[in-house]
Amino acid sequence: MQNDRRVLDLNRRQGKSCRLFYSDDPVKIIRARGQYLFDEAGTQYLDCISNVQHVGHCHPHITEAAAAQMDLLNTNTRFLHDNIVMYAERLAATLPEKLCVFYFVNSGSEANDLALRLAQQYTQHEDVIVLDHAYHGHLKSLIDISPYKFRKLTGQKEWAPLPDTYRGLYGADLPDPGQAYADAVKDLIEQVQSKGRKIAAFFAESLPSVGGQVILPNGYSAKVAEYVHSAGGVFVADEVQSGFGRVGTHFWAFQLQGEHFCPDILTMGKPMGNGHPLACVVTTPEIASAFTANGVEYFNTFGGNPVSCAIGLAVLDVIEKEDLRGNAIKVGAVLKELFRGLHSKHEIVGDVRGVGLFVGLELVTDRKLKTPATNTAAYVVKRLKEDHIVVSTDGPWDNVLKFKPPMCFSVENAEQVAQSIDRILTGRKCDVWTSTTTGFNLVFNPPQTRYQDHEP
Amino acid sequence: MQNDRRVLDLNRRQGKSCRLFYSDDPVKIIRARGQYLFDEAGTQYLDCISNVQHVGHCHPHITEAAAAQMDLLNTNTRFLHDNIVMYAERLAATLPEKLCVFYFVNSGSEANDLALRLAQQYTQHEDVIVLDHAYHGHLKSLIDISPYKFRKLTGQKEWAPLPDTYRGLYGADLPDPGQAYADAVKDLIEQVQSKGRKIAAFFAESLPSVGGQVILPNGYSAKVAEYVHSAGGVFVADEVQSGFGRVGTHFWAFQLQGEHFCPDILTMGKPMGNGHPLACVVTTPEIASAFTANGVEYFNTFGGNPVSCAIGLAVLDVIEKEDLRGNAIKVGAVLKELFRGLHSKHEIVGDVRGVGLFVGLELVTDRKLKTPATNTAAYVVKRLKEDHIVVSTDGPWDNVLKFKPPMCFSVENAEQVAQSIDRILTGRKCDVWTSTTTGFNLVFNPPQTRYQDHEP
Repeated sequence: MQNDRRVLDLNRRQGKSCRLFYSDDPVKIIRARGQYLFDEAGTQYLDCISNVQHVGHCHPHITEAAAAQMDLLNTNTRFLHDNIVMYAERLAATLPEKLCVFYFVNSGSEANDLALRLAQQYTQHEDVIVLDHAYHGHLKSLIDISPYKFRKLTGQKEWAPLPDTYRGLYGADLPDPGQAYADAVKDLIEQVQSKGRKIAAFFAESLPSVGGQVILPNGYSAKVAEYVHSAGGVFVADEVQSGFGRVGTHFWAFQLQGEHFCPDILTMGKPMGNGHPLACVVTTPEIASAFTANGVEYFNTFGGNPVSCAIGLAVLDVIEKEDLRGNAIKVGAVLKELFRGLHSKHEIVGDVRGVGLFVGLELVTDRKLKTPATNTAAYVVKRLKEDHIVVSTDGPWDNVLKFKPPMCFSVENAEQVAQSIDRILTGRKCDVWTSTTTGFNLVFNPPQTRYQDHEP
Repeated sequence: MQNDRRVLDLNRRQGKSCRLFYSDDPVKIIRARGQYLFDEAGTQYLDCISNVQHVGHCHPHITEAAAAQMDLLNTNTRFLHDNIVMYAERLAATLPEKLCVFYFVNSGSEANDLALRLAQQYTQHEDVIVLDHAYHGHLKSLIDISPYKFRKLTGQKEWAPLPDTYRGLYGADLPDPGQAYADAVKDLIEQVQSKGRKIAAFFAESLPSVGGQVILPNGYSAKVAEYVHSAGGVFVADEVQSGFGRVGTHFWAFQLQGEHFCPDILTMGKPMGNGHPLACVVTTPEIASAFTANGVEYFNTFGGNPVSCAIGLAVLDVIEKEDLRGNAIKVGAVLKELFRGLHSKHEIVGDVRGVGLFVGLELVTDRKLKTPATNTAAYVVKRLKEDHIVVSTDGPWDNVLKFKPPMCFSVENAEQVAQSIDRILTGRKCDVWTSTTTGFNLVFNPPQTRYQDHEP
């Protein structure tokens, strides 16, 4: 409306640092419900990416719980309150017994920063091993451990290879890629130690997300944990994106790695408050005790307040009552099956991967060379928008269409998305073939738009 | 109720790092409204310390605004939304024109961490000058610049003297203590530079809070800014505690330093969302541009979302509609006047200071030596609790009773507090005198409790 120009001005002025969705023609959403977004004209968009609005946009149970507690009391954790205890107990029930000390904070970044402090204080070591392309948050301490960010800065650092069995160092065709990638971490530890440095932590997302919706190979985490523990470090699982039942079969994505694996520190965030700033670090009593022993009090003004905890409890209620994990299993399976159909039909679909409602569709202009089809991916995103479907890309080459919708996403939604992508790729088949012949400058319809795909 | 033991257990297990109010006999508050807290038995407590619940606990206008927006939409800043523009415009109207680029985040700590990144990126310098006893947040980067915290850790650093004209290096009796304290910063800059290091920022609370409710002397900030600018650094004003009209006469505490002074970066937090996790960094277009120029996107998942902005707007509405700044001027004046009466009557009251509803009452066992009356302060806090008044202490020796109540605090509340303190100090006068004679081991009534005051 009248504010549109000012909204854009403001974004231009201050938000230069923050990329807008559809920056050429941004969408102004004014209302949302469940898995649907609505713009000013009342047009409905299907939301495939809002993993923060985990149980669905504007869920009435969450709003009611928040308003009721806001009307009653909102203080800090220097006062006793039942909500924080009930919430910690509910979360503890989803976790292995040894993870039983909770620190409530306001964002995944605050959680990861605290995880880093806990690891360094407990081990009395400094160095952190991270995965290539990882992103752990926007704070000063976390840019330092996020190759996704720091690779753009001056001064290169080291990182372990991303255990991506599609395009990574070791493919799914190897007998044990989990072991091979874990051994790469072991090699890195040895390199670091040979320089006299000491490992405080191995820090990784349980499902690397900006790395391109990557699923860790079997056995990887347990092996890495073994090597990291031998070096005197701890294993930090970043579940800021992947937790709260998104993978369906389990409540936490690290549990996909088997019952014999448990991280020493786990961080959670985005889906935890369904949009409310709420995050958490959970660790073992031993690590927590070492942290306390330095005599520096940890206090977080808003963290763990009664309103945040009421909202967190309401989110857990909805996950259970609406069986959203069951839905993630069912709909995720349908989505992957439909995407496998696209893989059979469209040469440009290089890989389909995912668990539950965490799914990636990787586009390549050449299946053998795995040339990232970055521009086709951008084109599909743009065309999906015209079909009123909101999707975005991820991965180092932005060629992975990512799907992490609100957990109420339906079978019909999955079918709509797959059909729409099928139509778009069918219409563009001619251009797609062009891309492998012309190299990397190709013109799509509409002809005024020029796209450039990456070289291998 | 049944959860009490578990609440305490939880606090004992995990919260060892977080000190409870009244840790010997914690209060379980279950309801609050305005400036009043209510425990399980329905007992009403007068709240003198909840500066976060700025416009009053559970203000219905804030709850309504939050619930309405939660029911409508809560996305992130990758989508356009009017609320963030309206909110930035409303905040801009309270600030000098040059402070016009806003970054919305979730906590004062996130704000200060970003301020540090902005300052270091803009200046391409590393070093930060802070005030002694300062506290700027719980993040890894901020512990590093918080003497209040890092003094307890191994490895000492340097800091500028706290410009406390009561017990600091330069007293209010000097002709120009502001100049004297600023010159101490200048000396520190020269020391740092002589070691080949370069100043990125001078970082200070506009009203040092954990330092003991300190009011900066006239002329201090403008002089410091001049020195810091000469060294190529920027001035960061931390208004996480002091902003949003608490000082009454101005919207921001830095404005107490005169119209010719303006910080380069300002951070805000605690009172901003009346308890909702909401904070912000505001800076100049020049500094923001330098930050963007490094090519690293800044994105904050929850920061600036429509719900947070709706709440922020509602807080501004209430401050204006209920003339809370006017109230802070009026009630703050009464409170200070009554406390000056206590100063005349009770030898143990060493200093009364404050602006608006940011007031400190410093207790000393000896006015000449300014011996901190730490135990008497703790005793007064404990006795005030029995009178159902919630107050806590601050300052390096925890001997300053601090008052930063919700801004709806009334003249009657001020009178009640002053009368209660008067009664407590009168009853303890004999003991107070004892303290100067026995040194620092004295026994109060109840006789089973032993207090220890600090030596000078």
